[in-house]
Amino acid sequence: MTASSGNAREALAALDPRLPLHARLREALTTRLRGGEWTPSEPLPAESELAQDYGVSLGTMRRVLTELVDEGLLERRQGSGTYLRRMQAQNSLFRFFRHHRQGDAVPTGRILTRETRPAPAEVARALGKRTGTKALRLHRLRSYDDEPFLVEDIWLPLPAFAPVRDVELTEIGDLLYPVYEQLCGLVIGSADEELWVELADAEVAELLGCAPGEPVVVVERVARTHAGDPVEVRRSRGLASTFRYRVEIR
Amino acid sequence: MTASSGNAREALAALDPRLPLHARLREALTTRLRGGEWTPSEPLPAESELAQDYGVSLGTMRRVLTELVDEGLLERRQGSGTYLRRMQAQNSLFRFFRHHRQGDAVPTGRILTRETRPAPAEVARALGKRTGTKALRLHRLRSYDDEPFLVEDIWLPLPAFAPVRDVELTEIGDLLYPVYEQLCGLVIGSADEELWVELADAEVAELLGCAPGEPVVVVERVARTHAGDPVEVRRSRGLASTFRYRVEIR
Repeated sequence: MTASSGNAREALAALDPRLPLHARLREALTTRLRGGEWTPSEPLPAESELAQDYGVSLGTMRRVLTELVDEGLLERRQGSGTYLRRMQAQNSLFRFFRHHRQGDAVPTGRILTRETRPAPAEVARALGKRTGTKALRLHRLRSYDDEPFLVEDIWLPLPAFAPVRDVELTEIGDLLYPVYEQLCGLVIGSADEELWVELADAEVAELLGCAPGEPVVVVERVARTHAGDPVEVRRSRGLASTFRYRVEIR
Repeated sequence: MTASSGNAREALAALDPRLPLHARLREALTTRLRGGEWTPSEPLPAESELAQDYGVSLGTMRRVLTELVDEGLLERRQGSGTYLRRMQAQNSLFRFFRHHRQGDAVPTGRILTRETRPAPAEVARALGKRTGTKALRLHRLRSYDDEPFLVEDIWLPLPAFAPVRDVELTEIGDLLYPVYEQLCGLVIGSADEELWVELADAEVAELLGCAPGEPVVVVERVARTHAGDPVEVRRSRGLASTFRYRVEIR
């Protein structure tokens, strides 16, 4: 028995005994994963070790881990092990802004302003906070080869994101989710995105290099941790003329 | 043995014998379904009858039918049987145009013009035809309670759609796919849709009741039969201000 096996068996024993063993095991593991016991950077213990900790057969443990992979909570990395899964941002709608220099490259992200402000009502609501709650606002410009193609307005609740407020701006790279993970221990597990069209105001027009009143596509994302808590509200605006979205219907 | 069982067994026998029986059965049934032997209005024969026709066990037939249901080629209708599936147009992007009178109602469709024209190059290409091929063009206005919200430009290849050219316009209801099915025997199985934003020209502006130059969302759909043949190209245009699209990312 390892040090953690006592807790593991207790957690399993505390669940409704009328549920089949694999359902109880699944619930116990889900609770631990959502609670943030592992980050996406460290593998879970070996299946055999986990099976032993919970006092279940290797077959039962494998079955439940496979279910959690199918559900998207875990992922298997070839030759490396099983990990907490990060959200796959390549499904984001903002990927449908076309830029001729794009390819598979990540656009650069330059933070124009970083400030502490009371969250506007709709942002506070999306974050599950009271109106006027203190939040960190990042205003960011994303570019390919110095050609801007996306203006972003990002709201992060405080104090959870205080480390992002306090770190040197030069320490923040082109991607923010790794920063949230490293500085705040917050892993993004899923998001809702909504798309609509509006007309560029003077500020957006200047940043994107278009005339005010030109149509822009807005992608609003509310990102959540694996526990389901909303932790980021982001509005990305790009020229409508560069947007093209494709789906298959069955 | 029924009358069709000879053909069924022959079709199965003609396939690569190195494939497992269920894979051959799946291929044989797929070919028949894609070939249009059944319409979505008539159920397939009973599973036991099909099993007998192909000389396979009931278990093998059930397994393959379930696979074809999962794949989206067939659908089971409660208490009625198994049918060729129609495309589920409720997944269409044009459903994301919001109208206050909308609810679950089907908008009315009024055909403004119906004419035979050479297909423009990009339409011909999408239909897999040569540039200049003769096509039927329908210009249609979709409304809720006489309030227009969508202008549609529909291209249908000739002679396949000659019956739609020749039928009285009053015979064409608010939905076109049932008309394609009844008059032309063509069932829509899937579609690709692409979305972009453009500015309303004078004609679209007048029909939608906006100013020319106002942004409109265009949804272009290329609809296919179960055999994969493109048979309709449709561009639907609605006011961008009425469009809002939502997705979940994992």
